[in-house]
Amino acid sequence: MYDRKLATRAGRNLEALRAEKPLIHNITNYVAMNYTANALLASGASPVMTFAHEEVEEMVSLAAALALNIGTLTPYSYESMLKAGKRANALNLPVVLDPVGSGSTRHRTESAKRLMQELSIDVIRGNASEVLSLAAEASKTKGVDAIHSADEAADAGIVLARNSNTTLVITGEVDLVTDGQRILYVHNGHGLMGTVTGTGCTAAALIAAFMAVDPDAVMASATGLAYFGLAGEHAADRASAPGGFQIAMLDALYTMDSGLLVEGAKIQS
Amino acid sequence: MYDRKLATRAGRNLEALRAEKPLIHNITNYVAMNYTANALLASGASPVMTFAHEEVEEMVSLAAALALNIGTLTPYSYESMLKAGKRANALNLPVVLDPVGSGSTRHRTESAKRLMQELSIDVIRGNASEVLSLAAEASKTKGVDAIHSADEAADAGIVLARNSNTTLVITGEVDLVTDGQRILYVHNGHGLMGTVTGTGCTAAALIAAFMAVDPDAVMASATGLAYFGLAGEHAADRASAPGGFQIAMLDALYTMDSGLLVEGAKIQS
Amino acid sequence: MYDRKLATRAGRNLEALRAEKPLIHNITNYVAMNYTANALLASGASPVMTFAHEEVEEMVSLAAALALNIGTLTPYSYESMLKAGKRANALNLPVVLDPVGSGSTRHRTESAKRLMQELSIDVIRGNASEVLSLAAEASKTKGVDAIHSADEAADAGIVLARNSNTTLVITGEVDLVTDGQRILYVHNGHGLMGTVTGTGCTAAALIAAFMAVDPDAVMASATGLAYFGLAGEHAADRASAPGGFQIAMLDALYTMDSGLLVEGAKIQS
Repeated sequence: MYDRKLATRAGRNLEALRAEKPLIHNITNYVAMNYTANALLASGASPVMTFAHEEVEEMVSLAAALALNIGTLTPYSYESMLKAGKRANALNLPVVLDPVGSGSTRHRTESAKRLMQELSIDVIRGNASEVLSLAAEASKTKGVDAIHSADEAADAGIVLARNSNTTLVITGEVDLVTDGQRILYVHNGHGLMGTVTGTGCTAAALIAAFMAVDPDAVMASATGLAYFGLAGEHAADRASAPGGFQIAMLDALYTMDSGLLVEGAKIQS
Repeated sequence: MYDRKLATRAGRNLEALRAEKPLIHNITNYVAMNYTANALLASGASPVMTFAHEEVEEMVSLAAALALNIGTLTPYSYESMLKAGKRANALNLPVVLDPVGSGSTRHRTESAKRLMQELSIDVIRGNASEVLSLAAEASKTKGVDAIHSADEAADAGIVLARNSNTTLVITGEVDLVTDGQRILYVHNGHGLMGTVTGTGCTAAALIAAFMAVDPDAVMASATGLAYFGLAGEHAADRASAPGGFQIAMLDALYTMDSGLLVEGAKIQS
Repeated sequence: MYDRKLATRAGRNLEALRAEKPLIHNITNYVAMNYTANALLASGASPVMTFAHEEVEEMVSLAAALALNIGTLTPYSYESMLKAGKRANALNLPVVLDPVGSGSTRHRTESAKRLMQELSIDVIRGNASEVLSLAAEASKTKGVDAIHSADEAADAGIVLARNSNTTLVITGEVDLVTDGQRILYVHNGHGLMGTVTGTGCTAAALIAAFMAVDPDAVMASATGLAYFGLAGEHAADRASAPGGFQIAMLDALYTMDSGLLVEGAKIQS
């Protein structure tokens, strides 16, 4: 059922990440900032979190990928994202967008859509309701929680990916990755990941890190998610509640090696 | 000594929280933001932390309660609190205020007082020196640490609660809850809670979560504090230093069930 | 090889910190804010993190030391640092600067240099590349990671310390502390400290806390770093990956007593 070649690619990407230690520029929300930085460090990447208008263009030009996240968006940080994103586009650097809470308020939905219009975005990662909100006005999310299953959103996602010329990642019990042509499913993960704030944001940042070593957005997304989800499974072997689990996940990201990842990756093509 | 009916109410409120998963809108400080979000998630609530002027009114209208915290207040976030608070008042949603550090600088004392004037606030939670600063100009807090005992502050608190038509929560070794008529004391808690930053802020957010399921502010505050304090006691069974304790508290919030809470709640009427 | 008198001084400083619980005013970055506050609390200090223009001058006048950190600098927080720093200077309070990422972007290098010109700064703590960037335009850091060894930077550091009339701390495998006349080396620490975000920022804040009890900047810096590094060594006895290690460090800062510190401090004069 799971694709052996893709599991091997996941392992290779992890090795490349550890070897290259790419600088990942994050413009992200205040809640997840610390956890995302620690997860990137534990994974082998080099995180920098800055949104200062004076430096985002220079900083992103030193980076290997840019991760944008609208979790606590302000007019100032929206402008930071535009500046950094345009420079990243000019330099052909991968750009990942996490439209946190899109669909819950007009501000979030419209901001995410404007970023999609103004920038060339390689990967958009959200839960089903967030992604659906980008496809249509129909859905209303309950805060940042998912109200649709990945299944329900898959069709809309494929159309949206095709129309917006991007790779869409809909995370849920099973993650869906599609560029409108190819579709991959990632079966790694654990329910406790939903009990820790910022795990979705961190997944998006890790996809950016994997894109720094694998230019194929569908492959980078699926292999990054397999790595992150498998770390969640390993963490759940050691912790059964959110506090210990959040710490065990950082440990699992750090101790995972390519052999374990190849063995445990559950990517379905 | 402890009130059995109130302990039962604590257990019922926790069950309601787990069943309803209310969205709690937090406008809080940058230090406690992550821990507060994780504690709310571990407790069963659905946290959202946003202060963007473009969306706070829409976001709070999706929420079941609003928690305000002036720990790292700026003119921008003060305005966010006013906007969200006025909408919450219009919608009859519970509003909780944590006047962090009130009494230490004029800015904090005056900002807390202005929020009390501009908004209808259901619960104010602070340590004794913070609450005393709202009652009079006399006290000066040493940073955000308490310099008065809950006992010393009780009388001033009762008068302040009556005059400002709100419920006051003064946390300390024993917590005091009063609306100026009724007085409850909560004896749960552990000294290690004072060694972790943001536990007070998190207590206030949990009170907001309990108000989402129990409209009586005195009852919601006392039962929420009993839950939080008992989680601290359970955490202290497993950890004896601040790092492990901070993680064990999240675990205890998550693993606590209504039976344990009814058994362990120490609310005195 | 290690200086016994300096180890004794480290122990005495830790005891003074626990006895006096000095208020440390931090204007720091959003990523490290929570961890720094928890580390200061675990150590015995009283942290406050505020950058509001309305109160930074009043707050710093209540504090025993000021710690500045440009990790997520904005025009607003730069102004906060100037205001607080000038008041601290007028009150003869110790001021510590952490020039995070100086050398990586012009904005950071210039902001750090301007703070050095506008304020009298007692201690500057950075890795070798950050400190070198303040001495010359030559170096480019790779994000916030060190690209030069402490050895390579020592000579430039000594000259910079002398010219700018400050104490320089260059952290790395071995930490260097110099005021341009005296040089101390601190051999405490563990490689896992580099896998947790904000440990460098926290080291700078702890130096500020030690300066609150020991006015000699070279002594306060070296003894503070020995304490922090030894906590890292103790943490590494209990945890072998970044998640558990980050928590174990807070525990080690808390459980360390002056006897353990005197025994374990590795300060070389």
